Amino acid sequence: MILVMKNGATQEEIDSASNQIKTWGHDVSISKGEYQTVIGIIGDKQDLAGKALHTLAGVDKVLEVSAPYKKASREFRPEDSVVDVNGVKVGGGHKSIIAGPCSVDTYDNLILIAKAVKEAGATMLRGGAFKPRTSPYSFQGKGEEGLQMLAEARKETGLPIVTELMSEQDIDLVYQYTDVVQIGARNMQNFALLKEIGKLGKPVILKNGIASTVKEHLMSVEYVMSGGLNDVIIALRGTRTYETAMRNTLDVSLIPYMQKLTHLPIIVDPSHAAGKREFVSALGYAGMAIGADGAIIEVHPCPSCALSDGDQALLPEDFTYFMNKVNRLEAWDQKEWSREVGSMQNSKLNG
Amino acid sequence: MILVMKNGATQEEIDSASNQIKTWGHDVSISKGEYQTVIGIIGDKQDLAGKALHTLAGVDKVLEVSAPYKKASREFRPEDSVVDVNGVKVGGGHKSIIAGPCSVDTYDNLILIAKAVKEAGATMLRGGAFKPRTSPYSFQGKGEEGLQMLAEARKETGLPIVTELMSEQDIDLVYQYTDVVQIGARNMQNFALLKEIGKLGKPVILKNGIASTVKEHLMSVEYVMSGGLNDVIIALRGTRTYETAMRNTLDVSLIPYMQKLTHLPIIVDPSHAAGKREFVSALGYAGMAIGADGAIIEVHPCPSCALSDGDQALLPEDFTYFMNKVNRLEAWDQKEWSREVGSMQNSKLNG
Amino acid sequence: MILVMKNGATQEEIDSASNQIKTWGHDVSISKGEYQTVIGIIGDKQDLAGKALHTLAGVDKVLEVSAPYKKASREFRPEDSVVDVNGVKVGGGHKSIIAGPCSVDTYDNLILIAKAVKEAGATMLRGGAFKPRTSPYSFQGKGEEGLQMLAEARKETGLPIVTELMSEQDIDLVYQYTDVVQIGARNMQNFALLKEIGKLGKPVILKNGIASTVKEHLMSVEYVMSGGLNDVIIALRGTRTYETAMRNTLDVSLIPYMQKLTHLPIIVDPSHAAGKREFVSALGYAGMAIGADGAIIEVHPCPSCALSDGDQALLPEDFTYFMNKVNRLEAWDQKEWSREVGSMQNSKLNG
Amino acid sequence: MILVMKNGATQEEIDSASNQIKTWGHDVSISKGEYQTVIGIIGDKQDLAGKALHTLAGVDKVLEVSAPYKKASREFRPEDSVVDVNGVKVGGGHKSIIAGPCSVDTYDNLILIAKAVKEAGATMLRGGAFKPRTSPYSFQGKGEEGLQMLAEARKETGLPIVTELMSEQDIDLVYQYTDVVQIGARNMQNFALLKEIGKLGKPVILKNGIASTVKEHLMSVEYVMSGGLNDVIIALRGTRTYETAMRNTLDVSLIPYMQKLTHLPIIVDPSHAAGKREFVSALGYAGMAIGADGAIIEVHPCPSCALSDGDQALLPEDFTYFMNKVNRLEAWDQKEWSREVGSMQNSKLNG
Repeated sequence: MILVMKNGATQEEIDSASNQIKTWGHDVSISKGEYQTVIGIIGDKQDLAGKALHTLAGVDKVLEVSAPYKKASREFRPEDSVVDVNGVKVGGGHKSIIAGPCSVDTYDNLILIAKAVKEAGATMLRGGAFKPRTSPYSFQGKGEEGLQMLAEARKETGLPIVTELMSEQDIDLVYQYTDVVQIGARNMQNFALLKEIGKLGKPVILKNGIASTVKEHLMSVEYVMSGGLNDVIIALRGTRTYETAMRNTLDVSLIPYMQKLTHLPIIVDPSHAAGKREFVSALGYAGMAIGADGAIIEVHPCPSCALSDGDQALLPEDFTYFMNKVNRLEAWDQKEWSREVGSMQNSKLNG
Repeated sequence: MILVMKNGATQEEIDSASNQIKTWGHDVSISKGEYQTVIGIIGDKQDLAGKALHTLAGVDKVLEVSAPYKKASREFRPEDSVVDVNGVKVGGGHKSIIAGPCSVDTYDNLILIAKAVKEAGATMLRGGAFKPRTSPYSFQGKGEEGLQMLAEARKETGLPIVTELMSEQDIDLVYQYTDVVQIGARNMQNFALLKEIGKLGKPVILKNGIASTVKEHLMSVEYVMSGGLNDVIIALRGTRTYETAMRNTLDVSLIPYMQKLTHLPIIVDPSHAAGKREFVSALGYAGMAIGADGAIIEVHPCPSCALSDGDQALLPEDFTYFMNKVNRLEAWDQKEWSREVGSMQNSKLNG
Repeated sequence: MILVMKNGATQEEIDSASNQIKTWGHDVSISKGEYQTVIGIIGDKQDLAGKALHTLAGVDKVLEVSAPYKKASREFRPEDSVVDVNGVKVGGGHKSIIAGPCSVDTYDNLILIAKAVKEAGATMLRGGAFKPRTSPYSFQGKGEEGLQMLAEARKETGLPIVTELMSEQDIDLVYQYTDVVQIGARNMQNFALLKEIGKLGKPVILKNGIASTVKEHLMSVEYVMSGGLNDVIIALRGTRTYETAMRNTLDVSLIPYMQKLTHLPIIVDPSHAAGKREFVSALGYAGMAIGADGAIIEVHPCPSCALSDGDQALLPEDFTYFMNKVNRLEAWDQKEWSREVGSMQNSKLNG
Repeated sequence: MILVMKNGATQEEIDSASNQIKTWGHDVSISKGEYQTVIGIIGDKQDLAGKALHTLAGVDKVLEVSAPYKKASREFRPEDSVVDVNGVKVGGGHKSIIAGPCSVDTYDNLILIAKAVKEAGATMLRGGAFKPRTSPYSFQGKGEEGLQMLAEARKETGLPIVTELMSEQDIDLVYQYTDVVQIGARNMQNFALLKEIGKLGKPVILKNGIASTVKEHLMSVEYVMSGGLNDVIIALRGTRTYETAMRNTLDVSLIPYMQKLTHLPIIVDPSHAAGKREFVSALGYAGMAIGADGAIIEVHPCPSCALSDGDQALLPEDFTYFMNKVNRLEAWDQKEWSREVGSMQNSKLNG
């Protein structure tokens, strides 16, 4: 971290701040500018997380220079992590498409969807049994009955299942059935829940929050990993902005950006991002084009009968169309490109 | 609700959508414009919350016309609600200032703060024992030890205590000690937690989310109230925007705006909104000036020793200065003003 | 438009509002809900643009149902517009990549870039001679000297040139040289300028504003078109949000979204959106994958010598890599997909 | 400025970046952390505005430590500036309320408003003759006829007049009539216009942009001041966020924040911020309470007849009510408070 002292800070203030930092066990490096003095703090910043650096006399601002997450970072693990779900791999070049209904409703619908998405090439089946709804008067999910249907559908199709966990009290129940635990946007900073699931063994999909930053999202991943779990899949579902054309605003360039910061797989959720069926496939295609490690997509045979989010569900045949197109796609590979460009630059500079 | 049909929707689509709505038990009213047809739906919209109106063939968009919250709304209860906490009243003209440290750290600090804020005129004591921190490596709160200190401070000063609850698993513990349960921004949509506390008897302070809308905030209040609890105090702590001058962006005009929509008391949290000690008092003053029913403010005798959020803590003497100024303030009274203006308008129109 | 009356509006207020609208020459259609009455206004809403509908007694809110732009809309012209720039076509299936330096600096650099991007497949050359800079102390562009260099580069390569116009006073000068006039984000609502260029004959590229909505962007297009010009190319360069990972936030799903609303070509500007060289190509690729009609990309042989925005300039060899990859790409075609899905839906419903 | 080198940057890269900066005439100060090296640049940063520091090999990010504006800053002029408009003073303790219609419509309305606001205590009269409207089909202002009416109203009441300038071509015309030139949100970064008016002698009110940052707003002020003009009044009209309850989101704590950064007067524009008549007065009151140097408020005797923005116009009697309340208000004085707190802190620390 770097402390920028106020314009006009006294030598006494500079010394006092430096000494305080030294008592916390860190070396400092002081550089005086024309107007302002800057104090660089050397060493592991996590020890300083609880210290009120801003409030030292004469300090104008505190600038961070390194990432506050650790286990999630590329520095910690340079090579890609591959999450393995009953043999289905995600990350490190393995692309995985997760599909299924927003909410589990009837057994017939679920099986119909599961078979259709499997045939189209999906690698896992998603379905909600506990639903976070803005209104307490909206449908809240089928609960254990829904989990049982998902388990049945797994037996029928062999697809691993993914379902959302919303509450600490449901952990035992959900873990009894699911293969991957999904944490949604509203619980991205439910730290009590994140700590609990980090101690348990199942892979987790962690979506970004309604209006989280990339850094906060990675810090929430760090909460899960600090419990010991390494199998975290990061999902991007867009964030809230003033633009209401789409349900959320998803900048797909965050996919290669985050792949640079973390070794974990990044998947795209175009269903919640676009929120409108007619743009879900297009956005999912853009996400895969820019190099996502997978996608999670809502599919329902009768969107207007769906008990939640019917607006954004693809029909099974739309999903097939999407998968066929994705299968022919040559995805952008940021690492490959960086290498190419690097070598070209070198050859040019040397040439 | 209103369905706006697509430009060029067929008569068949219009009939089909209308009939579908009628099968759900609602009357419709159809009006044909030059380009577009509009179908008004008559009756209680909550029954339609689970229906995918957008997905009916030929529908362009669905517009809401009435509020989706019920118990929280002024329509449900036209007069102001007054929340009574061991005799301390909030709302309906009763202004209440809650003050104390962000985190409880030492007993001596807590008692010093409690006595100082009481003397300055605070009506309740706040203090965190469980802290939602972005980093898993930051200080997480003193837990039960902190709650015990708060209870001691209550005994010493007579001030009711307010503390944050973060997890369903801590409900029993926190309820054993606190007078008011605070739910923070990160848990505003932790619906499982909201449902639980709505079934219990203690007053709740519910802050808005990181980037929640007014409507979502009121829907979360509705979650609590749907369990049976009426004693909810709404706190505004600002939201995330692109502007980083302050920690968050708080538009105080939302205070009279929300007072119009709901009968519940609205208090302002300038500490988390401004996030910088030097602007906390000023913003708190503006919030009280525009008619807030109270404020919740962080106070610490040694901000640079505070274990969290020291940047935004007022010194006890700052708080006294603030309270003295607030006591001399003539607050804006939206209801009084509306009446004045109304009568002036009438006299003018009739004169 | 639709007027939603307040809960509790009187019959007198409903009648009075209806009558007022009728005096403005529009029919109304009234539907009474359980709590609220809704008044639909029939006819061309543009006549009502200057009327203060919100202020009629008893009105709660005014909802728009149809687009306020006209010449820019698909309703006005269902088929795609193709903008022709000296034989280079954009739109209606013609993809066009515009490349060149942010600012024109030296003649040698410009020619080097122009030749390189032409060889790689670019169809037009961009370069700034007048630069909108946040600071008055930053480099402001080469002015006419820069325009002359661009004209030279056109002679050398045959590529049409694109340059930014910032001021009404420069119109004559810029029009003397350029083939396409670019209006940047900061002038998207410089209505005086938009009106002027709409009366002149050259094609215009109109970028979105710093934080404009899709609707505002199309309204600014409408300003240009209302002067008589049809040759407008819409460019998306992202908008400001709280996320600072990229320079701006660009949601590429707005590309098919806007293609549905307007007949004009939509191009993507990944340079200003990402703002960091290492992500520009990836984002440009995603934009072309989702179906943009082209892209505008900054290229410079020595980014650290560039006089502006060097951070986001591609090296010529990066641009070649990008073009090769784009040439192999099968772009998403929203219209094709809609047709496919439509026919599949029909066959399914009929089958 | 500070360059933070990449984790793993080589000594060669560090040397190369340092040397490059030295060739630009600046000293550097290098501090090596555990993971990252930081290079501090010493000297006036404005010389570096055109340099692409980000693109030097091995650089991870560039952090700014001092403000890029100069003449507008408190460092440049520590004491408050007082803008004098024909004897009406704004700033440095002088509070000034500017009121009048959004658009000038009829002479009778204008005179009625001018007399009413003068009697209520307004110090200047505002009125638009050129209107920036989102739609080209909306009323665009009365032009010179409107300016003539304003001049008449000045003669009648003695109030200086304030009107908006939108175009370089109208400068001569507008300057012939007005006392203060207003630049609106949409032209905050119309740099050509800002440069022109900075060379002329009349005081300027510069509103913030639709979604500008505080820093950008001050940079635009700097554009005006770099031409030689010192008489700039800064107006805050809120910015765009996702919240649609109010027309814009105005955080009044930016008033004391900006007063700390700049010596210029800051006024509040609650009419455009709230955008709804019933909240305009309340927000204006909060802005004055937190210490604004004045306010600019729209008033119209018949809002539903107003040709623009009738929704947000106060009736003359509302304005009188507001003024009476403001006259009784004890405003927050950030400088007084800082002094109080400072002395208290000192006495405490010494005591």
